[in-house]
Amino acid sequence: MKVQIGLIGLAVMGQNLVLNMNDHGFKVAVFNRTTSVVDEFLNTAAKGTNVVGAHSLEEFVESLQTPRIVMLMVKAGDVVDQYIDKLIPLLSKGDIIVDGGNSLYTDTNRRTASLSEVGLNFIGTGVSGGEEGARTGPSIMPGGNPAAWETVKPIFQAISAQVDGEPCCNWVGDKGAGHYVKMIHNGIEYGDMQLICEAYQLLSEGLGLNADELHAVFNEWNQGELSSYLIEITTGIFAHKDADGSPLVEKILDTAGQKGTGKWTAINALDLGMPLTLIGEAVFARCLSAQKEERVRASERLPKEYAVFSGDKAIMIQAIGDALYAAKLISYAQGFRLMREASKEYGFELNYGDIALMWRGGCIIRSQFLNSIKQAYNKTPDLENLLLDDFFVAAMKKANAGWRKTVMLGIELEIATPTFSSALAYFDGYRSAKLPANLLQAQRDYFGAHTYERIDQPRGKFFHTDWTGQGGIVSATTYTV
Amino acid sequence: MKVQIGLIGLAVMGQNLVLNMNDHGFKVAVFNRTTSVVDEFLNTAAKGTNVVGAHSLEEFVESLQTPRIVMLMVKAGDVVDQYIDKLIPLLSKGDIIVDGGNSLYTDTNRRTASLSEVGLNFIGTGVSGGEEGARTGPSIMPGGNPAAWETVKPIFQAISAQVDGEPCCNWVGDKGAGHYVKMIHNGIEYGDMQLICEAYQLLSEGLGLNADELHAVFNEWNQGELSSYLIEITTGIFAHKDADGSPLVEKILDTAGQKGTGKWTAINALDLGMPLTLIGEAVFARCLSAQKEERVRASERLPKEYAVFSGDKAIMIQAIGDALYAAKLISYAQGFRLMREASKEYGFELNYGDIALMWRGGCIIRSQFLNSIKQAYNKTPDLENLLLDDFFVAAMKKANAGWRKTVMLGIELEIATPTFSSALAYFDGYRSAKLPANLLQAQRDYFGAHTYERIDQPRGKFFHTDWTGQGGIVSATTYTV
Repeated sequence: MKVQIGLIGLAVMGQNLVLNMNDHGFKVAVFNRTTSVVDEFLNTAAKGTNVVGAHSLEEFVESLQTPRIVMLMVKAGDVVDQYIDKLIPLLSKGDIIVDGGNSLYTDTNRRTASLSEVGLNFIGTGVSGGEEGARTGPSIMPGGNPAAWETVKPIFQAISAQVDGEPCCNWVGDKGAGHYVKMIHNGIEYGDMQLICEAYQLLSEGLGLNADELHAVFNEWNQGELSSYLIEITTGIFAHKDADGSPLVEKILDTAGQKGTGKWTAINALDLGMPLTLIGEAVFARCLSAQKEERVRASERLPKEYAVFSGDKAIMIQAIGDALYAAKLISYAQGFRLMREASKEYGFELNYGDIALMWRGGCIIRSQFLNSIKQAYNKTPDLENLLLDDFFVAAMKKANAGWRKTVMLGIELEIATPTFSSALAYFDGYRSAKLPANLLQAQRDYFGAHTYERIDQPRGKFFHTDWTGQGGIVSATTYTV
Repeated sequence: MKVQIGLIGLAVMGQNLVLNMNDHGFKVAVFNRTTSVVDEFLNTAAKGTNVVGAHSLEEFVESLQTPRIVMLMVKAGDVVDQYIDKLIPLLSKGDIIVDGGNSLYTDTNRRTASLSEVGLNFIGTGVSGGEEGARTGPSIMPGGNPAAWETVKPIFQAISAQVDGEPCCNWVGDKGAGHYVKMIHNGIEYGDMQLICEAYQLLSEGLGLNADELHAVFNEWNQGELSSYLIEITTGIFAHKDADGSPLVEKILDTAGQKGTGKWTAINALDLGMPLTLIGEAVFARCLSAQKEERVRASERLPKEYAVFSGDKAIMIQAIGDALYAAKLISYAQGFRLMREASKEYGFELNYGDIALMWRGGCIIRSQFLNSIKQAYNKTPDLENLLLDDFFVAAMKKANAGWRKTVMLGIELEIATPTFSSALAYFDGYRSAKLPANLLQAQRDYFGAHTYERIDQPRGKFFHTDWTGQGGIVSATTYTV
């Protein structure tokens, strides 16, 4: 009696995906490099299920019905290639390898191509939702070899989150498209988390709210336009007490790591020349948080004024909520704008409305607001930038004043709001028909003969000025070598 | 009669370096892929000099005394490798190839190693100063194979800028150290230019200053602590009139390109996990400037309020100067902090005071203020961050109020100041003993079992909380596969 799917890698995400598949009536085989983990899993969390364990890759592969589906839930990087190399001789033409880790999309591009050459179908899929999502219904973003989609579709769409009767899982696109979209998702997650942290610091340090009051504010926010998973768990976090009865969050060290997908998202934006300022600042904010000892030293050398907020707290809380919402809109607008460029550049042919649907449930960034994004793309499938959609125009108009007030509060109280203010600068820059880059072009032409275009001449016509009266006539673009 | 050095690539930088060498009594041979450019050069700019031209690489190499020095001033990338491949069979053991283009430092790492294997000494050198600097004395930042240094040193130190009797050229370090430091230089240049642009927009659009008034403001700034090459040329730019007598700068299109070293600098910072927010925003600001047509459309969909400045202009101009200076200090602090990490990570063993000296003259970012950086490292060679030095502490204190006022002005007038505000957020974050990343760690542990450290427990001890009361006991760091 063969099973329908096999999964390798029993860390928390792997275990929970297996249990989720089992709940939906799928028979699953599991393998783990440290095989004692297999036994432990079968004797604890998987006890009483239909999950079968294997103690060797051969036994594991042997237990699968054909075409075989082998899902890897292992650490992204070399480990994935090592498993692929071990699996190739054990698998048959038409079998499917699924990589459900946070792999870099360029690795997935490469693996899809190389496995196709040996007759195997590769899928690289984003899986988001963390521990809980994996267990009860994650957002699943598969891409790779489209020949594999029909085989894995029933399983993936069954175990994924469902919102309004639709699965938060659909085919994303060729090659590394699934991991690319997951990367953007994670970048947006970095941004959303940093935004919430800035609101938290303004509310706690700036306005003096305690954990109970913070709980109440976030609880209220979660009923409105900010309603989302991250606001929901933040509400829960503020309610969570440590053993001594004090708020646990205040006992946690303020140093966050960053190594993976947030960084990749920012690098990709730089490579494609697309402004993704909010996520960039969010990644750097994590880097700065990690410099804890240095910050402590700096706080002594460069002490703050510690001004105290003296205005109306309720009004200010409302303004901070506006800032959180407006900056979040900016982040999504930047992220979708980047995907639009990537889709063109890499030939992914992404469907932005589908992506919004996939993120609507299951994943870490799930929120009510993704419906508005879906609707914007329903209305205008090739929408240039979300900020140009009616809903966004109205939302930005409504939040505008409170947002500005919030960033100014941070400036007055010497509280850093890197993403709130970066988003505001983008917003004001984006809707500037005229930016000061004309001076920058003049500078570049002055010192480097880089040439410039003119507002009174057609685009693509370049001019060089001898600014000093001493320069030559050779422009730097004349790389004739 | 052989010549002392040969140069390949007669674009503007190459031509001017050759003329500069000739001025200092060095005999130079030149070659260019399009050989007509060689003749043109000899018949125009190089007429009457000792420069000799070659029409083939063989003839070119043959004209050089040994050990030969072949300097490439060609487009970074494949072209450099192509020339290296062509030169290898023509050169002899101990000969030197110098790459003076804006190559990526990892390429220089690779080329230094591979040429060393065939007995050739490679130098990758930053050359900054643009058209004019190359002609009259650039900043030169050589790194690579130290065996080559003594041979090229007399030439490079003679043609480089001299400040207070010292050449703005010294050995930077092994491998790609020279190009790495040049990359950081260029990143800082991106930042400096964007800062000036933001000041320009606040002064012109916000305060209503015309080009003549801008000229006066920048001219005054150039007499004080902001004194620098970029402020100087900006002063000149505002004075430059178009054919019709109106300020030329206002005729220039506000779209700036970015593809190279600024982007690399930001990517490197992301890779090393070092917050380099100002340069990151400066690169993204160029990207946004390039979206000209989209911005014009957005300006109609999302119109601004066009508030008018009603305060004291003279006081505000002073504040904008403070902002420009303070944000510039932040940018240099971030850049030197990044180099400190890179030096450790890549084994470059950089000398930060020497770097400040090399940048003091000749290059685009040359300024009076680099003396203060040099002095800070004289006092404390292993200074953790420039912001902790007395001079910087005092400078930040002095500029603090005006800087905040300036960022708030931009927020009020809806004028984007991405680097002014990003620098401010970094400053306030950097001197925060406590940042809100404790909440972020709680979130990551909540949804992904990522664990956290505690303020009441030793570093390196990690905790996981079952926040929902339903989670398992498996933490995500237990990647046992």
